[in-house]
Amino acid sequence: MTYCVAMRLSSGIVFLSDSRTNAGVDHIGTFRKMNVFEAEGDRILVMMTAGNLAISQAIRQAIEKKETPEGDTIWTVPTMFEAARLFGDVIRDIHKRDGEALSQFGIDFNCSIILGGQIKCEAPRLFQLYSAGNFIEATDENLYFQIGEAKYGKPIIDRVVKPDTSLDEAAKCALISMDSTLRSNLSVGMPLDLLCYEKDALRVTRFANIDHTNQYMALIRQTWGARLQQAFAELPEPDWTQLDQQHKGLGLLKTQRKG
Amino acid sequence: MTYCVAMRLSSGIVFLSDSRTNAGVDHIGTFRKMNVFEAEGDRILVMMTAGNLAISQAIRQAIEKKETPEGDTIWTVPTMFEAARLFGDVIRDIHKRDGEALSQFGIDFNCSIILGGQIKCEAPRLFQLYSAGNFIEATDENLYFQIGEAKYGKPIIDRVVKPDTSLDEAAKCALISMDSTLRSNLSVGMPLDLLCYEKDALRVTRFANIDHTNQYMALIRQTWGARLQQAFAELPEPDWTQLDQQHKGLGLLKTQRKG
Repeated sequence: MTYCVAMRLSSGIVFLSDSRTNAGVDHIGTFRKMNVFEAEGDRILVMMTAGNLAISQAIRQAIEKKETPEGDTIWTVPTMFEAARLFGDVIRDIHKRDGEALSQFGIDFNCSIILGGQIKCEAPRLFQLYSAGNFIEATDENLYFQIGEAKYGKPIIDRVVKPDTSLDEAAKCALISMDSTLRSNLSVGMPLDLLCYEKDALRVTRFANIDHTNQYMALIRQTWGARLQQAFAELPEPDWTQLDQQHKGLGLLKTQRKG
Repeated sequence: MTYCVAMRLSSGIVFLSDSRTNAGVDHIGTFRKMNVFEAEGDRILVMMTAGNLAISQAIRQAIEKKETPEGDTIWTVPTMFEAARLFGDVIRDIHKRDGEALSQFGIDFNCSIILGGQIKCEAPRLFQLYSAGNFIEATDENLYFQIGEAKYGKPIIDRVVKPDTSLDEAAKCALISMDSTLRSNLSVGMPLDLLCYEKDALRVTRFANIDHTNQYMALIRQTWGARLQQAFAELPEPDWTQLDQQHKGLGLLKTQRKG
């Protein structure tokens, strides 16, 4: 599997991806899921992919050559919306080519993309694309997208990230979310790719490839676990008289041996 | 969906279940997932179910009448292992009766059971049963089972619960795990059923049905969120010089516009 997350904040966009792929537990590989398309001063597009790796790699190969009916490419379309459409069209092209052959082997055409970035004259935008080539955009009410093994790392994001969260805070939250996922699911693995896009930079300014030797990640892993345990210990334990009158409500659930 | 969790500790077993069922978002109901079979002083069995509600209810109806080849029932089998086998046999009976009819409507025969408790002369034991009627038992290395929407609430259990965790601490952890799940997934809902079985009691001593008015649950919900945010705020933010040399490792991921 995979875990990728991106958060669109008022100060920019945070992207984080793992690099594990697996086709069964005895076939595990390392493939990075992030790709960056940069024309400094004009645009930056960051793509992260989950699902069938062959499809993801085919998208990566085809996207630069894909054109809109007007002849624009990802390097010339005037908006992120049109860039997302181009990615969606590429997914559909690949489905047309490979969908039936995969289906003959019982393999779903399965691919998810997170696409974010900024094109000059627009604010940064963030999209999630589905296997059918359709897509949705992040808003202030739903400012993040996850693809792959999303559930383990969702609660911490739901509690912490808001539109005015700083890029560094959001990066910290993304790394904690990833840490929870890494601990609970073997199909997600290091190294990680972290990119914090600063609004209006129109180029990559902050990027880190994080592996087991990374000191900040080690600090996050140790400290977060310890703090969580401390916070847990400080919560009061259940007071059973307050929690419930004894046996109240158990009635219908309980069967006693007859006779 | 459903979320149920049980933890087998040295001092007993904690069981927690939600009560939401749904067949699509416009067909949501409240059905409690916990059932208790008690012969005071002799045995107590606690069953929690996830999956197809019709199958769960059929199991509940059939289990008391099911006999081993020796003529024992859940009220007379000498071990929890044999009780688990009886539950597994009932699942297989129902599959034999209903499996094909369900399959004609494209419905999977989907059912998961957590079964725990104690029979006199044995220590408390905890099992998880699958749709095929087979089952596994909890050990000190893997002391908890979850069924249904398990992923959101897994990280906190992985970090906190150990064999010598007290029943009250484990109940607190189970409620936090449930709270994370409730917040992130609409298909899991209140009220909750919480049962803490104290080793060798051989009857229910601590049970609570927890709804929106429950003060302890409200305290957990408010305090845990606040403590988590505080712990998050206290973690240092990324130091980018420490996190990575700028752009190191980005090379292969980055495509720049040609020409």
